[in-house]
Amino acid sequence: MIYLDNAATAKPDEESVKLAEKYLFTDYYNPSALYAEGYNLHLELKNTRSKLLSYIADDNNFSLVFTSCGTEADNQAVFCGGRRGNVVTTLGEHSAVFSAVNELKQRGTEVRFAKLNSDGSVDIEHLLSLVDEKTSLVSLIHVNNETGAINDVNYIAEKIKLKNKYTIVHCDGVQAFGKLDFRLSANIDLYSVSAHKIGGIKGCGALIKRKSLVLKPYIYGGGQELGYRSGTENVFGIKCFEFASEKRYRNLKTYFEKVKNLNTIFRNKLDKNLFAIISPEDGSPYILTVIAYGVRGETILHEVDDKGLIIGTGSACSSNDKKRYSRIILACGIDEEKADGVLRISFSPENCEEEVNKAVEILNETVKNRREIMG
Amino acid sequence: MIYLDNAATAKPDEESVKLAEKYLFTDYYNPSALYAEGYNLHLELKNTRSKLLSYIADDNNFSLVFTSCGTEADNQAVFCGGRRGNVVTTLGEHSAVFSAVNELKQRGTEVRFAKLNSDGSVDIEHLLSLVDEKTSLVSLIHVNNETGAINDVNYIAEKIKLKNKYTIVHCDGVQAFGKLDFRLSANIDLYSVSAHKIGGIKGCGALIKRKSLVLKPYIYGGGQELGYRSGTENVFGIKCFEFASEKRYRNLKTYFEKVKNLNTIFRNKLDKNLFAIISPEDGSPYILTVIAYGVRGETILHEVDDKGLIIGTGSACSSNDKKRYSRIILACGIDEEKADGVLRISFSPENCEEEVNKAVEILNETVKNRREIMG
Repeated sequence: MIYLDNAATAKPDEESVKLAEKYLFTDYYNPSALYAEGYNLHLELKNTRSKLLSYIADDNNFSLVFTSCGTEADNQAVFCGGRRGNVVTTLGEHSAVFSAVNELKQRGTEVRFAKLNSDGSVDIEHLLSLVDEKTSLVSLIHVNNETGAINDVNYIAEKIKLKNKYTIVHCDGVQAFGKLDFRLSANIDLYSVSAHKIGGIKGCGALIKRKSLVLKPYIYGGGQELGYRSGTENVFGIKCFEFASEKRYRNLKTYFEKVKNLNTIFRNKLDKNLFAIISPEDGSPYILTVIAYGVRGETILHEVDDKGLIIGTGSACSSNDKKRYSRIILACGIDEEKADGVLRISFSPENCEEEVNKAVEILNETVKNRREIMG
Repeated sequence: MIYLDNAATAKPDEESVKLAEKYLFTDYYNPSALYAEGYNLHLELKNTRSKLLSYIADDNNFSLVFTSCGTEADNQAVFCGGRRGNVVTTLGEHSAVFSAVNELKQRGTEVRFAKLNSDGSVDIEHLLSLVDEKTSLVSLIHVNNETGAINDVNYIAEKIKLKNKYTIVHCDGVQAFGKLDFRLSANIDLYSVSAHKIGGIKGCGALIKRKSLVLKPYIYGGGQELGYRSGTENVFGIKCFEFASEKRYRNLKTYFEKVKNLNTIFRNKLDKNLFAIISPEDGSPYILTVIAYGVRGETILHEVDDKGLIIGTGSACSSNDKKRYSRIILACGIDEEKADGVLRISFSPENCEEEVNKAVEILNETVKNRREIMG
């Protein structure tokens, strides 16, 4: 199988998992335990936190709280950051933020949604116009998970703070961490990341937090993670995350160039009579979203699956919604007929040119045949 | 090392982890994805849910929601179950419930705490006296994690429902699941379990829910777990949980008898001039809590650690509190001087008699020496 749905989840990196294995069967202790074996793990996790932070932030100003996933990190940011006044977000957020702010709305908080540009990036002017003296939180995705469009979050955060310096700025960085060369500015307060998108295993994420920000926990209990997130630390998952991130950041530029090349090959070889490309050229090369004219994305997805190619139709999470059209694609201004044909191809540095050549061939052929059958 | 802190966390079962390995590198797909490889995982998780449920509940009446840990399951029960009127709980709850209800209290909900008997079990009469027509939730631990005392939750739940049939009854079953022969009655609405206490890996738990109970999600997002818990499913963790549980339940009685025997050996060989036993004889044999007279538990813990024996001083989570005395042990009516000497020995079916004989020898000797040094 050729796997090009890496934005939904990536195959865990075998090398990283191998390195983390000792935390399953040798160092299996509880890091909150008082004896040396537990305490040593506690210290190791402290180092892991610093290490992960070092890749994208200054650890004098930021700390890192391990969570069970990116979704949990997003929920903590939204529910603990957005308690008063109004909350500003965008129409391009991942469900982890989108559903959470809708729940906030149900509870009586005013939620304002900024419009998107046609590539899925946020309309910055509109977003800024929504921020006022009562805005407690702005939640803005860094890399749009359906189109790959990059929001310049440092720039936007600076502008937000100029309008209201008390506004907490949260960014969902799940599709950026380990993929883009980027560092958090002091204007960003919270930043969510996830392990399983970059070669870690499912069940592990983190919320990066400006140290001086006072934030309530979302999960209460034994006081782990300095009280910010209780529950026995998922040591194995955390160590897999550490090793996978280390590999990604050691090779960040090489991987970026490699994936950029795969993306370009795919774009170039795509039959322009059959497809339109939604993803911007200057977006994350890890995501390439296209529209197949006049056919249903889901049908094509199943047909190419039978031929050995795995791609997506948008966020995997959305498949639970059972909604036919992606709300994000519609918010890009694409009409329902076209939105029906959306397909998301997402790359990993593990993919090779041969796979991509084969994949685009399968995709072109499948859509062509389907259209011929449909007349 | 002799490891007798299995109630804090148990070593993952190698056989179960081995069986689950294919979900790391072969079936690594996102179970929410639409293609066959994802959908098949979705179906597999459905089977896993039924299988786990079958061990303790009738799956016509109950469903199971995977969470990231027991703590998260407890939080969902408390925060989503205990929204109105008053909440009744006990002084013997794990921090995952205790801290959560205290947060509810901060937010204005009245929280009532039932007293404990000297062995850590709840004073049933007192608990029932606290339940009234405004009680939205009762949260009651099944097996006290610090003493091993068993609360007869089915009996108590029945009495609660007689007082108020609308009260949601939640039980933290983390120290019971996979250890005790027990089935949920229809009077229990919510039941929390955890994987890493019984040979699964850290980072996986579940909330068992009476099907007809309407409960809000606690983590919002892509709508996984039928909307009750969003976030990409931790397939590997869940499959480890399944296989570990299967092994535990296949051998439930044998393991129980084995651990009971280890517990008895430990009790019998413990020098009665140096120790008092807190754990009741009819409690869970998996936990044995004792008081070493006139010495500090933490000192003994470190001394026996140096000699190759790992034991606990109560809940591992509490070590984050930096509180000297366990609130649960104090609630059993034990004074501070004695509470200082608390040690928790907790067994696994993997432990053998030889280890236990050696362990009790080390413990007797260490406390004896320490007392002699102190004069």
